[in-house]
Amino acid sequence: MNTLVTGAAGFIGSNLVDRLLAAGHYVTGVDNFSTGQHYFLDQARAHPNFRLERGDILNKELLISCMRDVQLVLHMAANADVRFGLDHPTKDFQQNAQGTLNVLEAMRICKVPTIAFASTGSVYGEASVIPTPENHPFPVQTSLYGASKLAAEGLIQGYSEGFGIRAYIFRFVSILGERYTHGHVIDFYRQLAEHPGSLNVLGDGTQRKSYLYVHDCVAAILAALDQDRQGVNIFNLGTDEYCQVNDSIGWICEELGCAPNVHYSGGSRGWIGDSPFIFLDCSRIRGLGWQPRLTIRESIVQTVRYLRDHAHRIESALASF
Amino acid sequence: MNTLVTGAAGFIGSNLVDRLLAAGHYVTGVDNFSTGQHYFLDQARAHPNFRLERGDILNKELLISCMRDVQLVLHMAANADVRFGLDHPTKDFQQNAQGTLNVLEAMRICKVPTIAFASTGSVYGEASVIPTPENHPFPVQTSLYGASKLAAEGLIQGYSEGFGIRAYIFRFVSILGERYTHGHVIDFYRQLAEHPGSLNVLGDGTQRKSYLYVHDCVAAILAALDQDRQGVNIFNLGTDEYCQVNDSIGWICEELGCAPNVHYSGGSRGWIGDSPFIFLDCSRIRGLGWQPRLTIRESIVQTVRYLRDHAHRIESALASF
Repeated sequence: MNTLVTGAAGFIGSNLVDRLLAAGHYVTGVDNFSTGQHYFLDQARAHPNFRLERGDILNKELLISCMRDVQLVLHMAANADVRFGLDHPTKDFQQNAQGTLNVLEAMRICKVPTIAFASTGSVYGEASVIPTPENHPFPVQTSLYGASKLAAEGLIQGYSEGFGIRAYIFRFVSILGERYTHGHVIDFYRQLAEHPGSLNVLGDGTQRKSYLYVHDCVAAILAALDQDRQGVNIFNLGTDEYCQVNDSIGWICEELGCAPNVHYSGGSRGWIGDSPFIFLDCSRIRGLGWQPRLTIRESIVQTVRYLRDHAHRIESALASF
Repeated sequence: MNTLVTGAAGFIGSNLVDRLLAAGHYVTGVDNFSTGQHYFLDQARAHPNFRLERGDILNKELLISCMRDVQLVLHMAANADVRFGLDHPTKDFQQNAQGTLNVLEAMRICKVPTIAFASTGSVYGEASVIPTPENHPFPVQTSLYGASKLAAEGLIQGYSEGFGIRAYIFRFVSILGERYTHGHVIDFYRQLAEHPGSLNVLGDGTQRKSYLYVHDCVAAILAALDQDRQGVNIFNLGTDEYCQVNDSIGWICEELGCAPNVHYSGGSRGWIGDSPFIFLDCSRIRGLGWQPRLTIRESIVQTVRYLRDHAHRIESALASF
């Protein structure tokens, strides 16, 4: 199948590219390299079925030129860090909502029948039902990131109804694993690498969060696409567990062999809009036979090992953020 | 209070302006007159507390220049017709989502504390719970109009959480009454004015819809604002009843004194994304003591009388659409 992956040089996008190529698909990758990394695509670039287009999803003409004869768009490009929305209030909207509209317009013009979209559990805001099912009561947004992904979901749904596009919307918990580039594990890793005796934590450490290993995430996306469904299909993606930030700190420190003094700042939330309890009901994707291979603890440890093994590259990559 | 009304020359906006002025507020009206009508503001322009700014909400600088010392923004400007989204797929998004983001950015910069927003029952898509409460299960969008309003709601909620803006989000059913400019009553009125013996109807006539009289809508908005609530406040606005399209046809024909042959086209939906049953649970706004004065039948008849009394002006206004 001819596929197009936006955000192909990103954390999840590049893992998806590798998996699609391994499954025998042709892949066109699009990335503006604002946060994507060339070396994430080292393996893909060596593959004859991979083509890379450097460019921005805000450039609709570029998208149109890439979508000829494409059967499936996997739209992973995004401003992906929920925490910093308030520092640049229009950025999430431009990158995530306007960008998705461009992808949809290019699909409509090029008659691409199917989209898979990386959404987020952040669209539930502070969920009132936990574990949170896909049909949770109409949520109130608490972050500009969540709002921008909600806007993108709505656009995809409107295009699905209006133009017959098949849509797979995946609401992720936080993803961990190889090529991980942002989030608490990297924050803690970097702090502890610099001064192993001290760790500053946003929030009081009791926030309960869910995580999923990136290879499990990619496997879930492909499992859902294999079902070949019509219309709009929404799936939470996560594990059937959660952990406290303090649990995560313990596992990271154990792996790194350090015992820092931990300094907490803020209250029960790490930042404005932080949800103190994220735990998604993933029975719908489980019902397709998919299950995660790694626990949260295993995926955190795997991520720490990846960061340690790639310390030099990660520091140079982070400098580009 | 210093207020700013976007879409001030529109159907709902201009009625709101008149009511705010009557209540003693200062009003700055903004309108690009793409569909707004100068004569809707005849009464307002004669009032010393009214100021009109001709301009587009896509012009953020204009909004900033208008919001100095404003305490309340009533954001009514929108591309407001749900039916034609597929003819221009990016228009709803630009006008309704990007436009709202500009309003919010101007509010943030000018430190305006409160927004009232004209949203829509269309955000429920095809509701699974009827009458539909505000906390209906997370809906799937079926129109680009609904999607654009959902995006705007999410942005408002994100700004409320992030910047402390108080938000009143009103999900309207279809509004009827004086200065009504689009929808089935005007479509039917115009057809019957031209040839009283024949009426073409989108759908099979059994679609069940809800309507609210514009003066009742404006009164509900002001009743909610009077409560002075914090955070995000969402209210459905409608009557505690619905009617079939065929009921409406009967009332319109009775008022006009005609008995046309009715020709139905399409199936149970009038257009792609049309919801065949719209009926909102309005107990939350009722709980504030508000109640509508006109029934659906009375507001349809009132609208027909208004259209008949303003036939000439309406035809010249419609030519500008």
